[in-house]
Amino acid sequence: MRSGTGAVPDWYYEDLTPGRVFDLGVVEVDGAEMLAFARRFDPQWYHVDPVLAQESGYGGLIASGWFTASLFMRGYVDHVLSRAAAAASPGVEEMRWKAPVYAGDKLAGELVVTDREPSRTRPGLGTVHLTGTLRRLADGEPDAPVLVMRFRGWFARRDG
Amino acid sequence: MRSGTGAVPDWYYEDLTPGRVFDLGVVEVDGAEMLAFARRFDPQWYHVDPVLAQESGYGGLIASGWFTASLFMRGYVDHVLSRAAAAASPGVEEMRWKAPVYAGDKLAGELVVTDREPSRTRPGLGTVHLTGTLRRLADGEPDAPVLVMRFRGWFARRDG
Repeated sequence: MRSGTGAVPDWYYEDLTPGRVFDLGVVEVDGAEMLAFARRFDPQWYHVDPVLAQESGYGGLIASGWFTASLFMRGYVDHVLSRAAAAASPGVEEMRWKAPVYAGDKLAGELVVTDREPSRTRPGLGTVHLTGTLRRLADGEPDAPVLVMRFRGWFARRDG
Repeated sequence: MRSGTGAVPDWYYEDLTPGRVFDLGVVEVDGAEMLAFARRFDPQWYHVDPVLAQESGYGGLIASGWFTASLFMRGYVDHVLSRAAAAASPGVEEMRWKAPVYAGDKLAGELVVTDREPSRTRPGLGTVHLTGTLRRLADGEPDAPVLVMRFRGWFARRDG
C-alpha cells in the first residue's frame, strides 16, 4: 500500500485514533488565483465582478466555496494523505461555508479524527470519519471558521 | 435582486417548484486541465502520476473529486444561477463520488428541485433543496452517475 503521494506510509487505519488532531498548516489566499478559479468554475458576480462585489454587502470579491474547499484539500494531502496509507474517499457528509473568504486571507487548516470502523464492503480497509476546518487568522491567531467539512476516508489496515 | 451573474433574473424562489428538473448541459473532461487542477489542489498519485495510475486498478489518471464537483458548479451557474435570483449557498448536505472520471469523459449534468421552504433566518429569501448529478455519457446516452450532490441554495422571493 502506498501513501496518497506514492511513498511508504507512516500512518495506517490503526494510527487514526478518534480524537487525534492534525495541523494542516496555513495557506494565504492568492487573489489572482482565486479570481481565475471563479472565472472558470463559478462565475457568479460576487466571485468575478469586482465593481458589483465592492458595492455589495461583501465589500469586495469573495472566493468560490469550491476554491476554499480545494485549498483545504491541498493541505490535507500535504499534511496527512502524503504520509497515510490512503485509498479513495467515498464522499463528503456535510460541508458548510461559514463566512466569506477574501484575497489575502490567511487560512489555518485542522483535521480531527471523530470516529472509525472497519469497512463492511472493503476487506483490508477501514473507514475513518474526519472533520476538517479552515479558520481565518486574525492577528496571527486562528479565528472563526470559514469552512467546516465532515467526510470519510478509506485507509489500509496495518494487518490488511 | 440580480441573477447569479448580475442580470435581471427569470426565476425566483416561487419558480423553483419541487420536482422541477434543469438540464445542465454536457461537459467534456479536458485531460490537461484535469491534471493541472490535481497538481495544484489534490496531488495524490492516482490523480497526478500517469505511470502509477496506469499500473493500478484505475488503469489511468482519474479526476480529483473536487475538479468533478467544480465542473458541476460551472454547469449549475451557466444553466440555472445565471437566470435565477440567487443569493449564496450555506453548503452541501452530501456529496458522493460514485465512479472514477477520466480524461475525455463526457458528463451530462442535471439538477432536481427536491424541496423548499421560506428561510427562517433571512426574510425575503427561500431555501431550496437541490440534488445535482453528473452522469457519464455512454454511446451518447447518460449512464451511471459519477457525482451526486445534495445541497441547498438561497433564492429571493418574488414578493420579497
